[in-house]
Amino acid sequence: MLGGGGFIGTNLCRRLVADGHRVRAFGRRCSFPEALEGVEWYQGDFNDVAALAAAIETFDVVFHLVNGSTPLSANLDMAGDVQRNVVASLGMFDVCRQLDVSRVVFVSSGGTIYGCPQQIPTPETAPTEPITAYGISKLALEKYLALNQHLHQLDYRVLRVTNPFGPFQTSIKNQGVIASIISHAVRHEEIEIWGDGSVVRDFIFVNDVVDALVAAMQDHGDERIFNIGCGEGRSLRDVIAAIELLCGRKLDINWKPGRPVDVPVSIVTIDRAKDYLGWQPNTSFVSGLEQTIAWWRSGVSVDHG
Amino acid sequence: MLGGGGFIGTNLCRRLVADGHRVRAFGRRCSFPEALEGVEWYQGDFNDVAALAAAIETFDVVFHLVNGSTPLSANLDMAGDVQRNVVASLGMFDVCRQLDVSRVVFVSSGGTIYGCPQQIPTPETAPTEPITAYGISKLALEKYLALNQHLHQLDYRVLRVTNPFGPFQTSIKNQGVIASIISHAVRHEEIEIWGDGSVVRDFIFVNDVVDALVAAMQDHGDERIFNIGCGEGRSLRDVIAAIELLCGRKLDINWKPGRPVDVPVSIVTIDRAKDYLGWQPNTSFVSGLEQTIAWWRSGVSVDHG
Repeated sequence: MLGGGGFIGTNLCRRLVADGHRVRAFGRRCSFPEALEGVEWYQGDFNDVAALAAAIETFDVVFHLVNGSTPLSANLDMAGDVQRNVVASLGMFDVCRQLDVSRVVFVSSGGTIYGCPQQIPTPETAPTEPITAYGISKLALEKYLALNQHLHQLDYRVLRVTNPFGPFQTSIKNQGVIASIISHAVRHEEIEIWGDGSVVRDFIFVNDVVDALVAAMQDHGDERIFNIGCGEGRSLRDVIAAIELLCGRKLDINWKPGRPVDVPVSIVTIDRAKDYLGWQPNTSFVSGLEQTIAWWRSGVSVDHG
Repeated sequence: MLGGGGFIGTNLCRRLVADGHRVRAFGRRCSFPEALEGVEWYQGDFNDVAALAAAIETFDVVFHLVNGSTPLSANLDMAGDVQRNVVASLGMFDVCRQLDVSRVVFVSSGGTIYGCPQQIPTPETAPTEPITAYGISKLALEKYLALNQHLHQLDYRVLRVTNPFGPFQTSIKNQGVIASIISHAVRHEEIEIWGDGSVVRDFIFVNDVVDALVAAMQDHGDERIFNIGCGEGRSLRDVIAAIELLCGRKLDINWKPGRPVDVPVSIVTIDRAKDYLGWQPNTSFVSGLEQTIAWWRSGVSVDHG
């Protein structure tokens, strides 16, 4: 599992270990080493082909969860984003072919790959017009996966995950607005929010994303690309209101001007994943928030290094 | 004009000079220096940002005609193709923004960007599923141009040119099947052709492409992406028959197995370019072939270095 030390990776590792799978996680940094009991941890850089090959060797399915950039940072250095994500992933696909990996499961971006969609909720067949470099490199990697299957029979699945939240998500890299709000709320700190709170997102609890990743690992259907979200939109104001209700008090929010990477509304259709993967989200939004708040209150120490 | 020493570039330079424009051409190599009278020639590498800046300085419109790869070579080294085309172009877009260039006109690939299209002839709105790395990097650059306009107001036009042919096209890099056939035909040499001759392409005479580039330079409409082809398909066997007719004899052809980069049929719709650019192809296929044969017979010496 590449990028196994991050948010989705940590959750996926724990599930796969619990299910009795042999799991090896590779990454630059392991945010929660104590959470990865039973996982072989390989520290390394995603650009290091030899380290990648050592990590992938003897494994059948490779999960690609690496994010070398965030939507904000990628726009500031598009060429660097291409290097860290596209070029490095192409090297990884070559390694997978050489080691006869049977499938690559790639986490793409349901929130950025469509840009400002004309159709909401947005199906997988909608035009892909990202307004962030982050979304463009995800899109390019989807195309290169299809090409590697066409030319070299390297099988793959793509999950276009919308806005995941839950335990083990930190707010270090300006990603994860729910993690950011809750982490400040439990410490009674002021929260900075960009925009006026009207942006609408399709938030999905991480356990449901993990369900989809496991289903994608085992899938034998004809579709390759799946939206993974809850299929419903919530404004940031709704999210804040829900967290205030669960915390039992008003939050201290400092509203900042909106950013050009923010599309106003992002909601996806999830019929394809329901039909082909037999998957559906099982966690209500409130239950997901409760579990996330409980995790933050459990006294997690986040390594910001 | 970046890539000004190549096939389309040489033809475009000659037109712009004839129209009284100040023209500077930049490239690694100038195939036909004697054809570029009146053009300032800047030799340099497309990855060299300083050389690019020197070439672009004081110019208002930049034509991006650089191809660092061919459909065959890009598939063999996808990461190298990304470096040569995507990363280098991103550096070039930054230079254009810094120098207040008013527009970038980019030649994309009408023949590879759609992959194996479900809809033939194929409109600009069709899904883009390239089956070559060459097509994926063209697609990525289209997306980065849209992003640079969204974030930084760098205006652009994209021409998805199908299969251009005409004077100054050489067959050095395995591109340009018509150039390859005619160059061998006029020398009475055996011609190698991949496939069975059933592949259908949308061939367009280079003077018509140049018309479209000039129209794209001056356009004030709302569309950014245009198919540029003749809108009709011709099989390779039809092309061979037409050249045999014009040459007055049978060609000596050595048929080779097909390649996985060859889509069976590629034809585009050109209504958008007609409506928005006021452009249409003006050269009949036979007239284009005649001019191309005449050019090869004029005793051109092609520098294969």
